[in-house]
Amino acid sequence: MNNRITTLFQIKYPIIQAGMVWCSGWRLASAVSNAGGLGIIGAGSMYPEVLRLHIQKCQAATDLPFAVNVPLLYPNIEEIMQIIVEEGVKIVFTSAGNPATWTGLLKENGITVVHVIANTKFATKAEACGVDAIVAEGFEAGGHNGREETTTMCLIPMIADAVQIPVIAAGGIGSGSAMLAAFALGAEAVQIGSAFAVAEESSAHNNFKSGIIAANEGDTKLQMKKLVPVRLLKNTFADAVAVAEAEGANPEALKQLLGRARAKLGMFEGNMEEGELEIGQVSALLKEIKPAAKILKTIWQEFLTEKERLNRLEFPA
Amino acid sequence: MNNRITTLFQIKYPIIQAGMVWCSGWRLASAVSNAGGLGIIGAGSMYPEVLRLHIQKCQAATDLPFAVNVPLLYPNIEEIMQIIVEEGVKIVFTSAGNPATWTGLLKENGITVVHVIANTKFATKAEACGVDAIVAEGFEAGGHNGREETTTMCLIPMIADAVQIPVIAAGGIGSGSAMLAAFALGAEAVQIGSAFAVAEESSAHNNFKSGIIAANEGDTKLQMKKLVPVRLLKNTFADAVAVAEAEGANPEALKQLLGRARAKLGMFEGNMEEGELEIGQVSALLKEIKPAAKILKTIWQEFLTEKERLNRLEFPA
Repeated sequence: MNNRITTLFQIKYPIIQAGMVWCSGWRLASAVSNAGGLGIIGAGSMYPEVLRLHIQKCQAATDLPFAVNVPLLYPNIEEIMQIIVEEGVKIVFTSAGNPATWTGLLKENGITVVHVIANTKFATKAEACGVDAIVAEGFEAGGHNGREETTTMCLIPMIADAVQIPVIAAGGIGSGSAMLAAFALGAEAVQIGSAFAVAEESSAHNNFKSGIIAANEGDTKLQMKKLVPVRLLKNTFADAVAVAEAEGANPEALKQLLGRARAKLGMFEGNMEEGELEIGQVSALLKEIKPAAKILKTIWQEFLTEKERLNRLEFPA
Repeated sequence: MNNRITTLFQIKYPIIQAGMVWCSGWRLASAVSNAGGLGIIGAGSMYPEVLRLHIQKCQAATDLPFAVNVPLLYPNIEEIMQIIVEEGVKIVFTSAGNPATWTGLLKENGITVVHVIANTKFATKAEACGVDAIVAEGFEAGGHNGREETTTMCLIPMIADAVQIPVIAAGGIGSGSAMLAAFALGAEAVQIGSAFAVAEESSAHNNFKSGIIAANEGDTKLQMKKLVPVRLLKNTFADAVAVAEAEGANPEALKQLLGRARAKLGMFEGNMEEGELEIGQVSALLKEIKPAAKILKTIWQEFLTEKERLNRLEFPA
């Protein structure tokens, strides 16, 4: 291991699978960890006791490191954090909230903490709170996203420049060439969501996986900017949001349109018209459903091949 | 020369300066060409006879290849094309319009033609029309942009996959590391706008150059999506557009708000509050006004250095 991220997590490859709601249970996380990357259980769509079960099953399925992702705005956050400590989770990725609130407690319990951000302000704040690494997530990423709309190409150099701790790039990365681009920009690892959402071990509904594979360019859109921006796959629901937004709908009207449990309806129950389908732009480049280990190895091999190709290019000095 | 783009244009470095309205006159274009890149005169903000003068002055200022960028929706397009042929321009970049209309005539006159696109559909169409290369421009780019909002990270692999002709990456590229990322994604050259807009030789008003240097992340926004999407630096005018759009303004209301000659007012006359200031997200990474040759050489040296750094990274197979 010869990179700050592989050393920090004690993993073979600097490839991290994003902790996605309704996709990232123990099956996906353990498959990625067993393949040499870092698997993450996504707590955001789990009741506390469901999370406990997923942690225990993940521990039984792999001896290798894995993590739990916790959106800090989770309503039962105290319970979630208690379970994480009780169950001996070693690595936690926090997102969507203030890193000051929980980083201290997690670190006191010997847990490695990584915080997900989309701008420099929160990157430097998270570093000041003592987190061990940063995930910098660009505009093209699926799900919830930053208001600045800064793309991965522009965000990674900004964050790598602003913090001393290692930076993990996210958004638009589903191949070895995109991973290499992220490294060129200053990242020391990548966090990959969409490409693992379609893994065989992902708990996403098969309708959702098929929809991701069928997606073409322009089929996702960053919406709900008056609430919290979220990148969604276009469908009947997303089209209704687009119409409402074009007509100037206020936050209250958007909340009403969203209603409750739409992400579960779409991503987990497979309602492809009325569900909320969180996925990244890179879905347009995904072509098949494969085991997580094969996805990881394909990306890694392409990363090495493309690194070699770049190296062979010769130019005048 | 050992790359399809440097061979096609007979240039030393695969770095192209974008033909930007109100920035890219003969001074900037000839400075970039003399430094070993490809300079481009931006015809979009020039009357036909002004363009003729710029071509003649550029020819006098450099013996090296340069190009002219023509937005195909330009009202006096016939006159512009006639001048280009008459004055012996060797390379034309077309944008914002149908490549079928003019590519044939330009090619018959021995002119190398490149077309600028933001999606696969127009890339394959342009290739079918016989253009020699494609500029693929991501969401983070300044000025007019695609409706799909596909970022450079996602767009370049899509386009490189869809066409046989070489792909030039644009959007978010103002440094050697971003250039290297573009090459990792499959580009064979980069087109750089914002970083050359602040060149000493750029004809942009000094107020605009200072505003670009002062810009931080989140200071540009893609607006006017109900007309033609355009990325602008935030100011009084852009804020008014944002308010109107949030309230559901229709295309007619946006056209009224835009009025006439706002780009000239801002970019050329330096009215930083009421002008339309077209610039890319990468403006947040630009720190000083320098001669174009120094900008090009700095990017090139960083590209080589970063290529070497990537090459030295060692990972498990």
